[in-house]
Amino acid sequence: MLTLESFRKTVHDHVLADIYARARGLYGRHIVHVNATYQGGGVAEILYSLVLLMNDVGIDTGWRILHGSQEFFETTKGFHNALQGRKFNLSKEHKRLYMQVNENYAKFTHLDHDCIIVHDPQPLGLIAFYKKRQPWIWRCHIDLTSPHEELWDWLKGFMIKYDRVVVSNEKYVKAQLPVNQKVIFPAINPLTPKNREMVSKTMLRIIKKAGIPTDKPVITQVSRLDPWKDPEGVIDVFRLVREKVDCRLVLCYNVATDDPEALTMYHKVMKKASGLTKNHDVLLVVGNNEMLVNAIQRFSAVVIQKSIREGFCLAVTEALWKGTPVVASNVGGIPLQVEDDKTGFLLEPDDNKGFADRLVYLLKHQREADRLGRNGKEHVRRNFLITRLLSDYLDMLNEILTRRSRTAQEHCDTKS
Amino acid sequence: MLTLESFRKTVHDHVLADIYARARGLYGRHIVHVNATYQGGGVAEILYSLVLLMNDVGIDTGWRILHGSQEFFETTKGFHNALQGRKFNLSKEHKRLYMQVNENYAKFTHLDHDCIIVHDPQPLGLIAFYKKRQPWIWRCHIDLTSPHEELWDWLKGFMIKYDRVVVSNEKYVKAQLPVNQKVIFPAINPLTPKNREMVSKTMLRIIKKAGIPTDKPVITQVSRLDPWKDPEGVIDVFRLVREKVDCRLVLCYNVATDDPEALTMYHKVMKKASGLTKNHDVLLVVGNNEMLVNAIQRFSAVVIQKSIREGFCLAVTEALWKGTPVVASNVGGIPLQVEDDKTGFLLEPDDNKGFADRLVYLLKHQREADRLGRNGKEHVRRNFLITRLLSDYLDMLNEILTRRSRTAQEHCDTKS
Repeated sequence: MLTLESFRKTVHDHVLADIYARARGLYGRHIVHVNATYQGGGVAEILYSLVLLMNDVGIDTGWRILHGSQEFFETTKGFHNALQGRKFNLSKEHKRLYMQVNENYAKFTHLDHDCIIVHDPQPLGLIAFYKKRQPWIWRCHIDLTSPHEELWDWLKGFMIKYDRVVVSNEKYVKAQLPVNQKVIFPAINPLTPKNREMVSKTMLRIIKKAGIPTDKPVITQVSRLDPWKDPEGVIDVFRLVREKVDCRLVLCYNVATDDPEALTMYHKVMKKASGLTKNHDVLLVVGNNEMLVNAIQRFSAVVIQKSIREGFCLAVTEALWKGTPVVASNVGGIPLQVEDDKTGFLLEPDDNKGFADRLVYLLKHQREADRLGRNGKEHVRRNFLITRLLSDYLDMLNEILTRRSRTAQEHCDTKS
Repeated sequence: MLTLESFRKTVHDHVLADIYARARGLYGRHIVHVNATYQGGGVAEILYSLVLLMNDVGIDTGWRILHGSQEFFETTKGFHNALQGRKFNLSKEHKRLYMQVNENYAKFTHLDHDCIIVHDPQPLGLIAFYKKRQPWIWRCHIDLTSPHEELWDWLKGFMIKYDRVVVSNEKYVKAQLPVNQKVIFPAINPLTPKNREMVSKTMLRIIKKAGIPTDKPVITQVSRLDPWKDPEGVIDVFRLVREKVDCRLVLCYNVATDDPEALTMYHKVMKKASGLTKNHDVLLVVGNNEMLVNAIQRFSAVVIQKSIREGFCLAVTEALWKGTPVVASNVGGIPLQVEDDKTGFLLEPDDNKGFADRLVYLLKHQREADRLGRNGKEHVRRNFLITRLLSDYLDMLNEILTRRSRTAQEHCDTKS
């Protein structure tokens, strides 16, 4: 069972003591998180840890899942992509379906909590179906750099009813949104099977079982097979690296069974890697097991993240946490994590030669690789662990709920 | 939005008035249902309607979904099958996983309701992780004729903490279970796309779109492709019928994408039907759309249900509700619905000749078919609609919660 105490060996005691102190103002409060799914994806992973820890430090915290139909989730997947800048035809039928699912759910979901925290666009509209009597927070986990205008404007109608909007990056704060906005960076839980410590023997056993030869150094990218992650570019870079150093490339990818694009991309990648796959110089490995991803990130000599576009990129956080040096694109949340030549190397996404040079450099200079890896791990420890995220949430709740009490007090003073 | 009022055209006003009256004793009560999924399957369908209607008649009723991992649901699928009599190796690891998921969920699910209704085995164990301060009801939707002994005994440890166990059939009541047991029959909602009225024009449009020719009478079985539903036997019967009357057979089946057995069965059925499929005398139709199933059940001259084993069999209820005569096996809950020669014909599952004779008789005697269809529909109206099920739940809650108040009153009397 996940408790705050289990982090004693991972972060300093004062971090934990600060969290207990922040929880003090919130004893007896009843908070609830609402999102769209409890399995699959980064949001569910974060919520699972956050919700258990909030309860552990003494705040009754619930976690509810919106009940949507398949049709509804297809629509909100369209919303998600459109908010990240893709084309979308917003129809009356989309709006009707969205409202209906939210209204239905509200009928049997009685939220009498002290604060409601709604995650992502799917349940954003719930607020329209409640008599509002507590602060509501909308926590948006997606990239809002250039959202679809019409959809944004429609959803803004819900957002302005919220007391706070939380985004993952300063860049996503919107001047035109007249709501108090706050940035909370994502985080990883260092105690899950994906991130926890692993002894070399276990690591090697898992690596061998996955069919990855251990005779040469390995470069890895962990990502979906998705054009935004540029797996084809990674292979181009690998070909350049191989001219200088003998090594292998692992593409560790997740299979989203409902994603036809992934299959197309798989075939493109296989074609691009032709001549390199049969002797296992390029390996495609399905990362459907947390321990396997953990082992691969630890075993790799260098991790590459050649994304063209990113949200925060927790795959980089995970690699840094394992002390593995990272060479990555200067996009999205990556520069928050990778400071060039300090916690890794940062390059423009299309700079294949630059990527290859840095990879070769790290493969040839073990001490430099170790230095970046050490720094990266400390950077994550200080900034991107779930304990920091929990602390940020408690800060925000203290601020919102204390201010509310104060106003109620003022109200009483005026009346008396 | 589903309200009790919407049933005015379907059931008599006194049925609705009785429900409002039963709800009176429950105003201000807060009830919650907990089950394993909100989509797919009969339990989710029933809960969706029941929960909305309970709220509509004035009882704050929540609906929570257990958050399980894929591994957990594989285990509980094994439990489900074992409780229905299949072999199963109950291991320590199964128990550990079951307890862990239930304990985790309890950590962030604060149940301070007046009554907790837990459905099926997946969340049965929750009760171990709460300080019990209200009545708990376990509602089991599965066939408990001959449960796996060791598993039953282990789960019984949870059951005895409940105040009431509800099963779907008198046959499932267990003398060895020292808990107050009650039977509530399942029901259908006559207002969903699967069951609501449909004009002939719409029905024919859907039938034609599904590729079903309308030139000959159609016999249909709606079921999964599962040995217990004996689709191969249905084809044997159909061959006998075809010697006397020219007609077609539709096997309308549901695809469970996670069911490898279904694929094997599909090939068996196709082989069995060889020679009959190419000119569409036997048609396999995927019933993945509620309106399509509705249209097929209405369009069919006769519905056959040749199951070897059944729970309640809502497919028969649905067919009867559409006024279509049913020829079915005398197993599970079917004899509760089909009274021989009154609301349909009842046969032993292996009596192929009997099945064929009744089908031929109904295809040749339209007035007899109409009589059975009319009777069947009225039988369902009186006994197997969601309004009756709602009424049963309100009765049970009144009984449990009123008795509880009385005891509390007695307690006060004693103290004063």
